[in-house]
Amino acid sequence: GHSPLFILGPCVIESRSHALEVAHRIAEIRNALRISVVFKASYDKANRTSRKSFRGIGRSKGLEVLAEVRSRHDLPVLSDIHTPDEVPDAASVLDILQIPAFLSRQTDLLEAAGRSGRPVHLKKGQFMAPEDMGPAAQKISDTGNTRILLCERGTTFGYHNLVVDFRSLAVMARLSHPVIFDGTHSVQSPGGGGDRSGGDRRYVPLLVRAAMAAGCDGLFLETHPDPDRAPSDGPNMIPLSELPALLGQALELHEFRTGRVSDPAFAPSREAHP
Amino acid sequence: GHSPLFILGPCVIESRSHALEVAHRIAEIRNALRISVVFKASYDKANRTSRKSFRGIGRSKGLEVLAEVRSRHDLPVLSDIHTPDEVPDAASVLDILQIPAFLSRQTDLLEAAGRSGRPVHLKKGQFMAPEDMGPAAQKISDTGNTRILLCERGTTFGYHNLVVDFRSLAVMARLSHPVIFDGTHSVQSPGGGGDRSGGDRRYVPLLVRAAMAAGCDGLFLETHPDPDRAPSDGPNMIPLSELPALLGQALELHEFRTGRVSDPAFAPSREAHP
Amino acid sequence: GHSPLFILGPCVIESRSHALEVAHRIAEIRNALRISVVFKASYDKANRTSRKSFRGIGRSKGLEVLAEVRSRHDLPVLSDIHTPDEVPDAASVLDILQIPAFLSRQTDLLEAAGRSGRPVHLKKGQFMAPEDMGPAAQKISDTGNTRILLCERGTTFGYHNLVVDFRSLAVMARLSHPVIFDGTHSVQSPGGGGDRSGGDRRYVPLLVRAAMAAGCDGLFLETHPDPDRAPSDGPNMIPLSELPALLGQALELHEFRTGRVSDPAFAPSREAHP
Amino acid sequence: GHSPLFILGPCVIESRSHALEVAHRIAEIRNALRISVVFKASYDKANRTSRKSFRGIGRSKGLEVLAEVRSRHDLPVLSDIHTPDEVPDAASVLDILQIPAFLSRQTDLLEAAGRSGRPVHLKKGQFMAPEDMGPAAQKISDTGNTRILLCERGTTFGYHNLVVDFRSLAVMARLSHPVIFDGTHSVQSPGGGGDRSGGDRRYVPLLVRAAMAAGCDGLFLETHPDPDRAPSDGPNMIPLSELPALLGQALELHEFRTGRVSDPAFAPSREAHP
Repeated sequence: GHSPLFILGPCVIESRSHALEVAHRIAEIRNALRISVVFKASYDKANRTSRKSFRGIGRSKGLEVLAEVRSRHDLPVLSDIHTPDEVPDAASVLDILQIPAFLSRQTDLLEAAGRSGRPVHLKKGQFMAPEDMGPAAQKISDTGNTRILLCERGTTFGYHNLVVDFRSLAVMARLSHPVIFDGTHSVQSPGGGGDRSGGDRRYVPLLVRAAMAAGCDGLFLETHPDPDRAPSDGPNMIPLSELPALLGQALELHEFRTGRVSDPAFAPSREAHP
Repeated sequence: GHSPLFILGPCVIESRSHALEVAHRIAEIRNALRISVVFKASYDKANRTSRKSFRGIGRSKGLEVLAEVRSRHDLPVLSDIHTPDEVPDAASVLDILQIPAFLSRQTDLLEAAGRSGRPVHLKKGQFMAPEDMGPAAQKISDTGNTRILLCERGTTFGYHNLVVDFRSLAVMARLSHPVIFDGTHSVQSPGGGGDRSGGDRRYVPLLVRAAMAAGCDGLFLETHPDPDRAPSDGPNMIPLSELPALLGQALELHEFRTGRVSDPAFAPSREAHP
Repeated sequence: GHSPLFILGPCVIESRSHALEVAHRIAEIRNALRISVVFKASYDKANRTSRKSFRGIGRSKGLEVLAEVRSRHDLPVLSDIHTPDEVPDAASVLDILQIPAFLSRQTDLLEAAGRSGRPVHLKKGQFMAPEDMGPAAQKISDTGNTRILLCERGTTFGYHNLVVDFRSLAVMARLSHPVIFDGTHSVQSPGGGGDRSGGDRRYVPLLVRAAMAAGCDGLFLETHPDPDRAPSDGPNMIPLSELPALLGQALELHEFRTGRVSDPAFAPSREAHP
Repeated sequence: GHSPLFILGPCVIESRSHALEVAHRIAEIRNALRISVVFKASYDKANRTSRKSFRGIGRSKGLEVLAEVRSRHDLPVLSDIHTPDEVPDAASVLDILQIPAFLSRQTDLLEAAGRSGRPVHLKKGQFMAPEDMGPAAQKISDTGNTRILLCERGTTFGYHNLVVDFRSLAVMARLSHPVIFDGTHSVQSPGGGGDRSGGDRRYVPLLVRAAMAAGCDGLFLETHPDPDRAPSDGPNMIPLSELPALLGQALELHEFRTGRVSDPAFAPSREAHP
């Protein structure tokens, strides 16, 4: 089996020094585990529950920081994009463009991302069935860019709660794109903190194990040296100190899954609606 | 009680003549029933399930048509906006700016809409609890623009289905903004048609009656001379020919509700989280 | 239109004197409003969240009290049944046998209820789609007893919450049985109170108005002189003092709905799966 | 770690010879893999979607068959119970009494099962949050019988669909009872087949892998020599021929999980509401 991809980093770029510090630690972990890592941090949190929340350091400063992370630590970098006009700047620095879940059906954004030629990490909307990612991904691939990663990050389940339907990993695999499991936003409690989103990081490891054993091609995990003080997604992020053990387990499960298990539910299909 | 607001029109501007024809009929209905009507039609369907779907005639041509509808029929006009850079153009023509449900938390868009000074029709995300509309609306009102309408349009309920939780009408009323019920998108079956969304217009009238009797300040209804041939949201739109009777019933129920019923569940509150 | 049926009473028989007092007040309301009323009270709460909760005064004593309510106030009486062996006793006193929602698919119970010859009030399981009430009702009607009422009482919506999908009123009406709306259990928060169920009676009136305007044939409402001191379903029950005004509004809406509105979504159908 | 428990068998006893044939094969698998197996088959399907469906061969004949399975193959046996009056007969033969999910809150049934002294396999209602299994299990343990297994089998997720929330495995583990994952009913599509339930066995293996890696103490799997001809739950059951490979993978994952992973989310707690 292919080796898995790990998209790792803090939710948001808090400052240049903070991002570089986290990137340094993540690069060490990468080197120790010999894994493929993409560094993730948002330069702009454009859809926070409330306007009062920290939004990040802005696009141009943020992209500078990410470029520095990239060159210093030889880490590919990923960040969210929100409107088509951000794409040229973003694509000039980022190795992967990420489409936020709420924007997973915005045609102009998907097409602009596609036309950039960069790989696109397309998060599944909390309001979408997994098979609906087919037409969404096609908006990108119709531009001629088929380097698309599909991401499971939980589905609306009543109010202030998400649930991960792991059947989606197979449904999306049948669309013939690699599937990433986002263990961080899957434990989010949207709006559950009143004017900020809550969450419960306690469940990240069990969901990560479930995803790797069920079958996926990589993980998206936000991490922070001190999550309880993080300005965004703190309740969902795992401490950096816990990351190596968790990634180690993920690797073993991935090896088990790709080496020992042949599961026809994941076989790419040409069905219109998998 | 105040008289209700009716936001009516076809899903999308199919052509100048089509929009004018529908507007003409809607103006007749307005005159006959002596009601407040805003004409709605999208110039751009930016988040269709699939790229192959009809997107509309484009912003500048679309805004021209809406301006013509406005002047010919003395109808205020409303359309969706998707990115902050659309706002100046849109606000130069539109009487009300509509924020699509998927974009209901995009801070930049909400702030740009707010700063335009135009009233904003904010649709509730399918992934949101009704109380979460408080911080979303505040992103607008913090610009100094408090002319905000909140819109219920159904909540994610499993895959390919939405459900209307009518308790939301009271929860949102307590946020002290008028509440509109969207009877069209509430019966949508998202992605349920494979590469287009399905729906079941059969249930529009019963949901409209329920909403007016429960308590809301207006209706949003898409309508079409021949919905089965409409390029977008056809399965959900009601035929124009059925509109007068339905609006008549809505009016009677609104009168009953505002004149005879005093329901403390709707009383504006200063709770942080209603 | 037919006049609606109102199933009214406290959740549980707390004592002989308590039940008679509530029944007395309900009979007065019936006489004042000239409506059809069935008195409801459970002799046994067989599925409380926790064993520590009050279960009622037991079957034989409970049935005696209901018989007394019946003869004193000329009120038909209804109560829940839980196992087939309860049916003979229950059917000797009760005018309508009620099948609790959790038990809505228990074949033996439904058949025993059917064979008693008594009308059966079949509550829709929180886990059921409305069309699934067709085969459930058929378990009763196959015994030759077609006097069946179908009841909407909310559907599982995430954890600790229910939502009422009012489309169900039409779906069940098409099954050709009268449809009752339960405004009390629809606002339940199952298990939400830890070892007891919570709820929010604030939303009962708005849901009742919605149901009557959408279209149903009757209401089920639990009521209590002092709900906050009730041993069961207190958070959901409305005070007896508020009942007359609410029933008056329900009557007006029912008259409007049956007299003025013709809605094909409710027309009985012979589809196998409406 | 403890070795896991496997509850295996056909959904229903179709005939003496059929049950014995399946049991024979299951005993062979047990011997080959050296695992703990309980044989499961229902003598009565008391809550089929429709009355026309096959219900089984009845209690007394069914218990005879299970007793024969038990003695011939040295297999402990498990079956569903539905009313308290079944318990004495059932407990005289069965090693484990199973409470169906719809009945998971029926106090009398839980108490009768508890008082039998037999271990009880308590399925989580499709309408329950995992923490609500605490008070349900306590109805059993208050009889002095604490040999209780808790079972995850999917939660209502819109209509005609269930979703497995794997966080529940940890929530229930914190209640200090072993947790079983039911991979068969988790892929059920309740009522989705019109007058019978549908399902999709394709997803059983991936959910089983997810459950074992996340963390559970055993599996419940229905299996059949020819599921497409089975009279009940055919769409969900896996073929007997695929069972050995799947159990082998489950064993490896269980070993990994119990030997290598220490997950505090599963640590028994004394919180009232975990």
